[in-house]
Amino acid sequence: MKVGIIGSTGMVGKTLIKLLEERDFPIEELRPFASKKSEGQLLKFKGKDCKIQSLSHESIKNLNFVFVATGEEISREWTPILKNQGTYVIDNSSAFRMDPETPLVCPEVNSHLITKDKFVYANPNCSTIQLVVLLNALNKLKALTSVTVSSYQAVSGAGKEALKELSEQSLDPKSVAPKSFPTQIAYNCIPQIGGFDDLNFTSEEQKIRLETKKILNRNDLKVSAQAVRVPVLNGHAESVWVNFKESVSLQDIEASLNAQEGLHYLKEGYHTQIEISGKDEVYVSRVRKDPDFENRWLFWLVADNIRKGAATNSIQIAEKLL
Amino acid sequence: MKVGIIGSTGMVGKTLIKLLEERDFPIEELRPFASKKSEGQLLKFKGKDCKIQSLSHESIKNLNFVFVATGEEISREWTPILKNQGTYVIDNSSAFRMDPETPLVCPEVNSHLITKDKFVYANPNCSTIQLVVLLNALNKLKALTSVTVSSYQAVSGAGKEALKELSEQSLDPKSVAPKSFPTQIAYNCIPQIGGFDDLNFTSEEQKIRLETKKILNRNDLKVSAQAVRVPVLNGHAESVWVNFKESVSLQDIEASLNAQEGLHYLKEGYHTQIEISGKDEVYVSRVRKDPDFENRWLFWLVADNIRKGAATNSIQIAEKLL
Repeated sequence: MKVGIIGSTGMVGKTLIKLLEERDFPIEELRPFASKKSEGQLLKFKGKDCKIQSLSHESIKNLNFVFVATGEEISREWTPILKNQGTYVIDNSSAFRMDPETPLVCPEVNSHLITKDKFVYANPNCSTIQLVVLLNALNKLKALTSVTVSSYQAVSGAGKEALKELSEQSLDPKSVAPKSFPTQIAYNCIPQIGGFDDLNFTSEEQKIRLETKKILNRNDLKVSAQAVRVPVLNGHAESVWVNFKESVSLQDIEASLNAQEGLHYLKEGYHTQIEISGKDEVYVSRVRKDPDFENRWLFWLVADNIRKGAATNSIQIAEKLL
Repeated sequence: MKVGIIGSTGMVGKTLIKLLEERDFPIEELRPFASKKSEGQLLKFKGKDCKIQSLSHESIKNLNFVFVATGEEISREWTPILKNQGTYVIDNSSAFRMDPETPLVCPEVNSHLITKDKFVYANPNCSTIQLVVLLNALNKLKALTSVTVSSYQAVSGAGKEALKELSEQSLDPKSVAPKSFPTQIAYNCIPQIGGFDDLNFTSEEQKIRLETKKILNRNDLKVSAQAVRVPVLNGHAESVWVNFKESVSLQDIEASLNAQEGLHYLKEGYHTQIEISGKDEVYVSRVRKDPDFENRWLFWLVADNIRKGAATNSIQIAEKLL
């Protein structure tokens, strides 16, 4: 297979390349793309040097798969062109996620949408992916009716510069002015990821809400999120409340969690972001019945936002296509 | 007034002394108490040296007020003795919070419980105090029915050693083994504050739940909390969802928030922990209607857990008693 990576020098792009090697994706040619300023630089893949190219109608020819790991603008420009030339595109940006024609895929949940004749696949938002893996398990129980999430999101989701900002600012907060974030992120939590809409919700909160409904194919499901950036390098955590229409037992919930592909359930104790950073699965713990609320349960959910929340999920889509 | 501080060398004790000076509490004698190892050390108050004493039946005599800023064991031992000798006790520990005979007071909410003939007052848990200031405002609107909270709690709540652990661990995570916390706190979130009960809730989560009902005198109110320690030095934040029985308008909510003593409401933008550290009020922002849920609203709530969450609230109780 001939595989292109758009955004190959970013956090997700680099992880995609590492994972393609790790998972032994059948690659004959890896073609990394990046902006003009990285053009001509070399990048190692399976011991060989690959030259970074910039995007052009010439440079994208003859590719079987392209992973898009940039912002939505570049995706909006190049995804339709790639599709027209018969290249499968797995797009990590938000450009086509809510497009009714584009499958929004988390393979553990809706891999049935992956078919040879569909060329463009949207990869969900990082904080949505880990949530839907949990909800898919719970959705098999008696009528899941609503979901409430408060997130604890790592700075790796904001890119390489953001990681550097947190690391340097943590050593001496006053010496590093905020650039990647609206205010100081070291030793601070920021309740803003993305811009605000008219309802005073952020784009991240609306992504969690709308993408979750689309992936689960449950427009009737009520979803509410508060998204918060925390001074953690990598790994997103979420406090999750789930309502069912009828009473469910801990045994039934545990059986569903244990049966869910890609989900690790811990009965006692809990996972933290540092422990799961670098792993490909979703981790759930602190499962408990809410004593004051009828048929409501609490969960603590953690996953690596760059791997399962982005790169791993993209490659899983490509693997299903193969 | 002759005023004693039990636990005068801890985070809350030191802040109490600073605040008594700042707020010009009418003090004739300040008597700081601490463990044997600090006995005889000097502590500055209004420019004068005060000698730290250890607790004894002798050393606690002739005090009008005592602030307890230690754990519950010391409070259980000394609070009844102080009460019997006619000293007013304001107890920051959890020892008597749920005792039906002891008023649990957040002055902005239930100062009517402060009366000359009651000698012992419990100061609520830090994460509860900021929550009830918000809920008191909302409780004046049409039937508040339930509250859901996910907390982002600073390490200062775990004491001086914990602050040192976060600071040192942030510089070099591998070099500082976890002592104040179950696992690494630098660049990590820990969903455990206190021990676990049979329901898999932590003591912090149950404090938020049970103390909130007691302070608001609303046993029927449904409260659910997930308490999480975050790598922040000082200041607690909370994602809060509130349900009303009937429809309420943003205007009504805003009017209630603006009318609430001790609460600052920000219409646009938000407060973060670093900004409000060192302040005495509770800060609320990101007020918005939950689009998928009937009569449910979201809030972002921040306060200084050592000041309003502990020391300031204690002194406010004493000031009302005067």
